[in-house]
Amino acid sequence: MHTPFTHRIALMNSSYSTRSLILYGRTACDNEPRLRRLLRNGWQIITLPDEGDIAALREALSKATAMISLGWKAEWKDATTTLRMIQAPGAGVDAYDAKALPKGCALCNVYEHATPIAEYTMGALVALTTGMVRRDRAFRQGSWEGTGRRDGIPHDELCGSTLGLIGYGTIGREIAVRAHAFGMKLRAVRSRATHEGDPLLEWIGGPERLRELLETSDHVVVCCPLTESTRGLLNAERLSWMKPTAQLVNVARAEVADEQALYEALKSRRIAGAALDVWYRYPASGFDVMLPSTAPFHELENIVMTPHLCAWTHAMVERRWTKMAANLDALAEGRALQNVVAQA
Amino acid sequence: MHTPFTHRIALMNSSYSTRSLILYGRTACDNEPRLRRLLRNGWQIITLPDEGDIAALREALSKATAMISLGWKAEWKDATTTLRMIQAPGAGVDAYDAKALPKGCALCNVYEHATPIAEYTMGALVALTTGMVRRDRAFRQGSWEGTGRRDGIPHDELCGSTLGLIGYGTIGREIAVRAHAFGMKLRAVRSRATHEGDPLLEWIGGPERLRELLETSDHVVVCCPLTESTRGLLNAERLSWMKPTAQLVNVARAEVADEQALYEALKSRRIAGAALDVWYRYPASGFDVMLPSTAPFHELENIVMTPHLCAWTHAMVERRWTKMAANLDALAEGRALQNVVAQA
Repeated sequence: MHTPFTHRIALMNSSYSTRSLILYGRTACDNEPRLRRLLRNGWQIITLPDEGDIAALREALSKATAMISLGWKAEWKDATTTLRMIQAPGAGVDAYDAKALPKGCALCNVYEHATPIAEYTMGALVALTTGMVRRDRAFRQGSWEGTGRRDGIPHDELCGSTLGLIGYGTIGREIAVRAHAFGMKLRAVRSRATHEGDPLLEWIGGPERLRELLETSDHVVVCCPLTESTRGLLNAERLSWMKPTAQLVNVARAEVADEQALYEALKSRRIAGAALDVWYRYPASGFDVMLPSTAPFHELENIVMTPHLCAWTHAMVERRWTKMAANLDALAEGRALQNVVAQA
Repeated sequence: MHTPFTHRIALMNSSYSTRSLILYGRTACDNEPRLRRLLRNGWQIITLPDEGDIAALREALSKATAMISLGWKAEWKDATTTLRMIQAPGAGVDAYDAKALPKGCALCNVYEHATPIAEYTMGALVALTTGMVRRDRAFRQGSWEGTGRRDGIPHDELCGSTLGLIGYGTIGREIAVRAHAFGMKLRAVRSRATHEGDPLLEWIGGPERLRELLETSDHVVVCCPLTESTRGLLNAERLSWMKPTAQLVNVARAEVADEQALYEALKSRRIAGAALDVWYRYPASGFDVMLPSTAPFHELENIVMTPHLCAWTHAMVERRWTKMAANLDALAEGRALQNVVAQA
């Protein structure tokens, strides 16, 4: 237990600490006050908002114990012998050269996004079945298409329909909890079928059951990691296995679905619709105006498209910084680090 | 148990039956094949798609036992002594003059819409927190506002937030099941507080706790019937009790919220946003182009607006006709009718 007294001592010690932490890049630096609030141990914090100032980075690395950064490059390795932890502020670690970690240094990531992704997924499924997004657009022009008051064409209910999950980790599980409460029938495939017996699922299988999942599901949600075996998984052939009435939701990485094949399947109504939150190209800054694919997805009426926001909640950001502070505390106190992705 | 044999006899008898059923109006007539498939007993069916042909209606009423109709008028009462049941094909019975039923005739309604309304409500809550609808619109123009990839402003999570239900009948209960799976904290007010102890709710109270509910809820869902005590319930004063960050969902009847007061509260951002599926005026036909209020709700960026579609699913329509066929069978077999709203 930490009493207020020992806590105050720890904070007082912070300016004398030999442990130094680099916050590299604007995002990390902007969160310095939050991190100071969450840390239990004293750290000297070096903020480097300008990612272009490599000289300053190398100087800081020469004595730093830890670093929170959006990436790690092989050419920085020789700048440090003291670094013990590189903490990614998110789940994806493709921007970190894990083969070029300094000796004795761990690469850690952080999750905490399963809840908001599951919320988005359920909302996207409702938006697809009700036509909420396109009908809001049309209704603002006075169109009552789909109304039950004047015998419009009814839509589909999620209750009783079949949801197929591609991937069944923490995100898939959170989706399953909510979809089960909606009365949906659930099945999943994942690379390692270790959840046999999960009471929320009718069945779970390995990749050999993907065709069965695609052929029998009314809705398919992509919530697997992007790996060499999932890149381009949903190509033209596999998309053709889906029901023509099926809807696709992608909250993982765009590249799990082949860009052109997915566009063609939606354009030709080979599948009924999709909700896409992850994309094939991203702007350099959040203020750039830019379409997210070379294919004109933005012209399709049968999709819901959002700019990679599904995980991005205040609560998720707070949970991630809480976990990162806990990892820094663990390092300071000589305890085991959490979410170690690689260790040199 | 009905064997295939007895079922066939019943169908064969239908042309000789003395029981006749009027399907009045296009909607009812369009569903004749569905109704014939669902009926267990023989009925002579008289279809009157043209609601303007009152002479034909009076002639049919003179010998009919039952009628499925979107309304009942006092001036039709003297046309029949044989009518035993007027079946409304929906829940609302404000278009039926219940004080002018023929002697011995019951007015029945039908529900079955709680499931899709609860699905819509959860989808609307996600759409409001994520900004799904307006961000889809902006993203099609290339705006990445709100993205987590480039440090957009995060949105709110439903998990851990407080949902206040105004009304707690079958619809409120179905919403509660789903919201509970989302990790939301639930409270409700209803005219008669009979659900004390419902494990899904933190508390349920009568109208005297409405202010507490409005002051403490992050999201408020209107799912009560429109009665003399709920008409105009959400006026300017009561809307001012809501949190400025709160979101409102109305899936009941528009008139529970005062039209101008609601518009002003949204326009001035006195409340953060709303999802509205029920409206202050309706077109004569589903093909008319018409805005749903004299106030310019369609200009508001902080609402999701849909044309009274939330209950309107294929499965709901099938469930309703199944219940209506069951009521006709009960009448034919001398059993008690279900969902009797009034009896003369």
